[in-house]
Amino acid sequence: MGNFIYRRQLTLDWAYCDPAGIVFNARFFEIFDGGTWALLEAALGVPRHALAAAFDIVGVPLVDARARFMAPVPFGAHVTLESQVGDIRRSRFAVEHRIVLDGELMAQGHETRVWAVWDGDDPGKLRAEPLPDEVLARLRGG
Amino acid sequence: MGNFIYRRQLTLDWAYCDPAGIVFNARFFEIFDGGTWALLEAALGVPRHALAAAFDIVGVPLVDARARFMAPVPFGAHVTLESQVGDIRRSRFAVEHRIVLDGELMAQGHETRVWAVWDGDDPGKLRAEPLPDEVLARLRGG
Amino acid sequence: MGNFIYRRQLTLDWAYCDPAGIVFNARFFEIFDGGTWALLEAALGVPRHALAAAFDIVGVPLVDARARFMAPVPFGAHVTLESQVGDIRRSRFAVEHRIVLDGELMAQGHETRVWAVWDGDDPGKLRAEPLPDEVLARLRGG
Amino acid sequence: MGNFIYRRQLTLDWAYCDPAGIVFNARFFEIFDGGTWALLEAALGVPRHALAAAFDIVGVPLVDARARFMAPVPFGAHVTLESQVGDIRRSRFAVEHRIVLDGELMAQGHETRVWAVWDGDDPGKLRAEPLPDEVLARLRGG
Repeated sequence: MGNFIYRRQLTLDWAYCDPAGIVFNARFFEIFDGGTWALLEAALGVPRHALAAAFDIVGVPLVDARARFMAPVPFGAHVTLESQVGDIRRSRFAVEHRIVLDGELMAQGHETRVWAVWDGDDPGKLRAEPLPDEVLARLRGG
Repeated sequence: MGNFIYRRQLTLDWAYCDPAGIVFNARFFEIFDGGTWALLEAALGVPRHALAAAFDIVGVPLVDARARFMAPVPFGAHVTLESQVGDIRRSRFAVEHRIVLDGELMAQGHETRVWAVWDGDDPGKLRAEPLPDEVLARLRGG
Repeated sequence: MGNFIYRRQLTLDWAYCDPAGIVFNARFFEIFDGGTWALLEAALGVPRHALAAAFDIVGVPLVDARARFMAPVPFGAHVTLESQVGDIRRSRFAVEHRIVLDGELMAQGHETRVWAVWDGDDPGKLRAEPLPDEVLARLRGG
Repeated sequence: MGNFIYRRQLTLDWAYCDPAGIVFNARFFEIFDGGTWALLEAALGVPRHALAAAFDIVGVPLVDARARFMAPVPFGAHVTLESQVGDIRRSRFAVEHRIVLDGELMAQGHETRVWAVWDGDDPGKLRAEPLPDEVLARLRGG
């Protein structure tokens, strides 16, 4: 309900479709990823390419991704992508995605992302870090 | 000059970028393809997924594609894609694409596409067909 | 254990990697999809492009896809993809995928696919059909 | 003739195909890119992810890419990709690609790549550097 939500309109291009004439499954995960970046940019007020520097993180790597496909999305469809912050834990948060065509839910996605920094003790390794209070507040839509 | 032109704004997503942090070359061809579909939709006044049926063609297959990369396009860049009908021949037409960032030309593309129908004499084969007068006029921006 | 399993070696190309220098999440789903086609071809003894015709189906559309990412897979890694038939129901089956690098599990995927035919009562709609006995036996590795 | 050549077999997956049931144009450029990395790895005797460090370069960025599509390549086709070093200049080289199906040339590609280092005078900018003699000799197949 309350968590930050971001909506955008998308036209589903020829490049996204497979020989069945519908959007190919892996493309939905690409779309969800784009939704998360747009959501973070809007929620945190920082351009996506500046997020890492602004918050002194490596990034928000994905540790879990899922999708359910309710109905095929045809070439040329104009859909709405809704991306909303879901469950928030100490150092990770979920993003829930919905692809809606003419009011009908066609596909839904779920991502779990980690607030990650370089691990000082082990160069080249990432370490999960607690979400800063400011980030928490903004992801909650406050 | 006069030929039909279509412009759209694009944000270059994480998914489009490679380990150099810039848009991967093949993605530009995907972007050009999307530009051509949007251009045809706008020029011909028919939704992209209805073009084949509206004009009784199989499609407008690509026979030649080229790009020149002037400068790397970084993650998160907001660019303008300009797609314009180029040279028109009897049964084929070119589309010229330009990716512009803050007024600077970053990449340009060229596609040659054929007005294709099924070849009645040879099932499964395509045949180039002369562009209808109505299509010619619209591609010329008339 | 017993269900059909298919293994292939993959080199993870530049095109698959993102600005973090690692394989982009959506690409794993593309890789899993390729694993399923290769598995079906091997299990059913029919080239992938001939499966629909051979079994009089529309295809095996995906209704659910998931992945867990344990460790980042770097550019140029030589991995093994293991794709195995998982849970089999009346008209659907799962495929479990594992990406292994030097003996370490880097990512795992899960797909649920439906044995789909055109719905005679409703043109343009798909309908799930029970898996034929022959197909069942082969997916079970019999 | 003499320049280094690299051949590999590819099966053209569902993910590579568009609603016409054939390999999507941008995917050919992805395939060509993969061919170039494999060629460089074989010619220079260094794993692809180690090339930059081994030769103290940023990489071999593409400045020009082209393809001609002679015939559609269908889903599931087993093709040969031939990638060969073409014209070599002071600080750049071409790679010529050919996609062959059952002895028939289906598509050909051309890439121009630059031997690039960071420009010491202008941080963040690339500069073309002459190809080292050792690299020249190996690209020529010597």
